Amino acid sequence: MNKVIVDAMGGDYAPLEVVLGASLARKEFGIDSILVGKKDKIRKILDEVGEDFEVVDARDMVTMEDKPVHAFRKKKNSSINVSMNLLKEKKGCAVVSAGNTGAVLTSSYFILGKIEGVVRPTQSAIIPTLSGFLVLVDAGANVDAKSSNLVEWAKMGKVFSKLVSGKEKIKIGLLNIGEEEEKGNDVTKEAYRLLKDAFPSEFEGNMEGKDFLTGKFDLCVADGFTGNIALKTLEGEASLFLNIIRGIFKKNIITNISWLLVGKEFKREFSKFDYEVYGGSPILGIDGVVIVAHGRSKRKAVKNAIKMAKELSDKGLIEKLRNEISH
Amino acid sequence: MNKVIVDAMGGDYAPLEVVLGASLARKEFGIDSILVGKKDKIRKILDEVGEDFEVVDARDMVTMEDKPVHAFRKKKNSSINVSMNLLKEKKGCAVVSAGNTGAVLTSSYFILGKIEGVVRPTQSAIIPTLSGFLVLVDAGANVDAKSSNLVEWAKMGKVFSKLVSGKEKIKIGLLNIGEEEEKGNDVTKEAYRLLKDAFPSEFEGNMEGKDFLTGKFDLCVADGFTGNIALKTLEGEASLFLNIIRGIFKKNIITNISWLLVGKEFKREFSKFDYEVYGGSPILGIDGVVIVAHGRSKRKAVKNAIKMAKELSDKGLIEKLRNEISH
Repeated sequence: MNKVIVDAMGGDYAPLEVVLGASLARKEFGIDSILVGKKDKIRKILDEVGEDFEVVDARDMVTMEDKPVHAFRKKKNSSINVSMNLLKEKKGCAVVSAGNTGAVLTSSYFILGKIEGVVRPTQSAIIPTLSGFLVLVDAGANVDAKSSNLVEWAKMGKVFSKLVSGKEKIKIGLLNIGEEEEKGNDVTKEAYRLLKDAFPSEFEGNMEGKDFLTGKFDLCVADGFTGNIALKTLEGEASLFLNIIRGIFKKNIITNISWLLVGKEFKREFSKFDYEVYGGSPILGIDGVVIVAHGRSKRKAVKNAIKMAKELSDKGLIEKLRNEISH
Repeated sequence: MNKVIVDAMGGDYAPLEVVLGASLARKEFGIDSILVGKKDKIRKILDEVGEDFEVVDARDMVTMEDKPVHAFRKKKNSSINVSMNLLKEKKGCAVVSAGNTGAVLTSSYFILGKIEGVVRPTQSAIIPTLSGFLVLVDAGANVDAKSSNLVEWAKMGKVFSKLVSGKEKIKIGLLNIGEEEEKGNDVTKEAYRLLKDAFPSEFEGNMEGKDFLTGKFDLCVADGFTGNIALKTLEGEASLFLNIIRGIFKKNIITNISWLLVGKEFKREFSKFDYEVYGGSPILGIDGVVIVAHGRSKRKAVKNAIKMAKELSDKGLIEKLRNEISH
């Protein structure tokens, strides 16, 4: 029950990097995992690195192209479905998967079910900022949203944000196209009023795209369409800019020398924005701790996603969400 | 008729930087302007710099807080309204304003009217990319959109993009949360089909947030809510990262020396992403060339916005839009 259930077949670098991530999580944090996937492949990697983990066989492969409901129904023995079933049977405390996000959402929804009172579960995301991190709900699970959905997600996002940051009070922003209350579309205009009522001391009003990384907000509430666009825009620009910087310093002997002088500073300043430090983020509203990790996850991201899973389970995420929703 | 009509009171640094921008446009490109705003203030600046421009008095001030329709109706003699009236009377060939965007949109809509056949005019934006620039429609004028609106904006955005880039054929992308045709909400799913029919050789399918800066697309089509969020997210992250880089090199004598070695490379690589190179972008669908410049515009951005205005007028933007829409 104390182990984290890890979908060893999920993500671009599975199973190798996932297995190595689980190995790191054990070494660095003492967190044990159950590895779910093609037993022979996983055993082979474990033998090579001289490690031993509990492995549960799952033969069906869900690809990134599979439609979620199809993957759930037709690939009963996928590593995703088998992982959810293990969690349901309390063989572990949480699930981590870097696989097809839609399939993970669907499988968790049907196998684990919703926390009582939750209308629509939400995919959260952690975005590193200048001064820590920001939690985004919804990051892409719900392409349409009513204003009441946004309030529900804000409630659950708040529980998660406080649990991870340890902050007593967080700053909530509604993603919008201007700071003024009357800005935006019908959904955001109504959501503004509802959020002001629901979080009188924590709702700070509208936030704009420029406010993501400044640390001005701890929680960003948006429909999943806009949230996903913003998230991928942030990731894409960061990755492009960092590539340009790397390219400059690698260009010739002069720029190499320059790197010797400022490399440390660059690493320190830009490591703040390394998404691998968090590794993954939970689906909120499902009756179980399920962490969705980035498809590009390598061992470091997997390791930290496992840490996140254990931490959220130990700190009672689900109980806290249940309390928040029933109030 | 050959002069560009410049709202001298619009933007955070008006009137000084706007007047200096007009002065630079004349010196560097030989483009003459009519300056619209508080005559005494503008004259004083002109006297100080020893320049002479045609100045048209406009006494009402529109602030960034004014509601657009209120600004239009109650501040008849604002520099925005007076500028639009001058364009209507053909006293100049185009209008440039860095003022309240909503007020500029409203004023242009009521005074100049729409091009025949246009359902909803759209605010475009130019986003600098690795290999040139991308045109975004809609950048925030229309918070809600039907799929048919997206097709109309794509048509107008295409005319603008080709006019400025000189490209024979452009690549059109639909902003969405995944590459596959079936991704997204009801509007994008339908828009995908409509765009495929309307632009068989130019529509490249869905684009994601990570594709903005890579140069993979020339034109991005989105509803104004999502488009605006993406635009401000891109601007905010670029500005934050550039500030961090500046901070690193300014830190101490060692990092100063490093700057001497790589500063030129940094300037060359990152000047690509300087929005001031374009200065502004037109409202498409209005019967007149109206360029909206960034509120933060300083002289260089104003200068380039004036250049953009003259170029679009000379190249017959409005006629080309009329042809595209009537087909």
